[in-house]
Amino acid sequence: MAAKICEGKTKKVFAAENDGSKVIIFFKDDITAFNGKRHDIIPEKGAISAYISSAIFKLLNENGVKTHFIEYIPPNKMLAWKLNMIPLEIVCRNIATGSLLKRLPMLKKGERLKKPIIEFFYKSDELGDPLLNECHLEYIVNREAIEEMKQITLKANEILKKFFEELGFTLVDFKLEFGTTMQGELMIGDELTCDTMRLWINGESFDKDIYRRGGSPEDVLKAYRKVYEAIKERIELK
Amino acid sequence: MAAKICEGKTKKVFAAENDGSKVIIFFKDDITAFNGKRHDIIPEKGAISAYISSAIFKLLNENGVKTHFIEYIPPNKMLAWKLNMIPLEIVCRNIATGSLLKRLPMLKKGERLKKPIIEFFYKSDELGDPLLNECHLEYIVNREAIEEMKQITLKANEILKKFFEELGFTLVDFKLEFGTTMQGELMIGDELTCDTMRLWINGESFDKDIYRRGGSPEDVLKAYRKVYEAIKERIELK
Repeated sequence: MAAKICEGKTKKVFAAENDGSKVIIFFKDDITAFNGKRHDIIPEKGAISAYISSAIFKLLNENGVKTHFIEYIPPNKMLAWKLNMIPLEIVCRNIATGSLLKRLPMLKKGERLKKPIIEFFYKSDELGDPLLNECHLEYIVNREAIEEMKQITLKANEILKKFFEELGFTLVDFKLEFGTTMQGELMIGDELTCDTMRLWINGESFDKDIYRRGGSPEDVLKAYRKVYEAIKERIELK
Repeated sequence: MAAKICEGKTKKVFAAENDGSKVIIFFKDDITAFNGKRHDIIPEKGAISAYISSAIFKLLNENGVKTHFIEYIPPNKMLAWKLNMIPLEIVCRNIATGSLLKRLPMLKKGERLKKPIIEFFYKSDELGDPLLNECHLEYIVNREAIEEMKQITLKANEILKKFFEELGFTLVDFKLEFGTTMQGELMIGDELTCDTMRLWINGESFDKDIYRRGGSPEDVLKAYRKVYEAIKERIELK
């Protein structure tokens, strides 16, 4: 096995053999919530997540939104461009729920936002991923990169919203991470899965909120599988 | 006594008699921290705060930054324009300290920022005054008002930084609140005192941080009095 570059709560990243510009991302079967306080292993989750992420990144790539995705490696890996990750989490919201309700109490849970809300969080488990505003962001990356990330996120949102709508799901919100290639090109990295998107059918969750609310690993798997099956019908990966 | 309009942790606001467009702000001797969990009465604090706030608002008014201040009413009151308050706290920072260090860990405590950082917080004790970004702010006030508040805050910062520097203090940061008059004019309201500004001499605090860190009411009074005496020497109010 190639050298491990890093390991997070749900993924391991390995150097791709014979090509320093690529990595292999291995999706673990782990699920965690509340900054790691709750943790389970859900067999099959890694494979489902690898498929979902690969399919969605392929969709984005084909629609002019660059992601690090190169190829799906069944059952639970993804070949991707090696990125120098920016320590930010970019959240895009179409519908009010979650932490947004604790920031803007005038919004009702489930309310459609008049336009997408973009939030940048500093990626730090230790600090609890604090929200940053435009002044703070200048200490992380330059203004142009911030603006580019915003525009890419909004474009991805349009593509994903339409895609999921056609599958019968409402894309409530999602989280992106960005990085730059060795050539300095900014693109979406990390993953887009049921761990990092909120997907509803008539207000019912098909994402990690099931787990956050105390749902069993079986409940989680059932929901993730439903999203996976729906995506698989539209995007067939070798 | 005229009708009380509202009461906060450190001030009471009364209708000014025979003029619905004005209010009398009474500065209490109370000091609180940690969302009201620590609370003391410091005799003389109300008078000191009324003087400091009046003097500084007068300075701002005379330098083209509109505030609600009309007249100091000795010993502990201020006549002011009645404002329809915007539920935001605008913080302007020149030096890294306090909550900023928990958001941008690459900053060192006491480090001078390359340019002022402006932060908007939603004023809500219940929610713990959450930080808002530009997307969120559109749910509170329009974009033009946000931009105007930012510009006024930056201009106030320039005036105050210079003023305090001449008195031997470093203006570390301060918090403003804004409101609109019955004619719809946006201006600074609330107060500018040692409760809402951080003032340092060689890194030593002369503000509410003394109290937040567990200092006694006597320690607080001593520091506030020093700021008051310094200001009084430069700005004499009838």
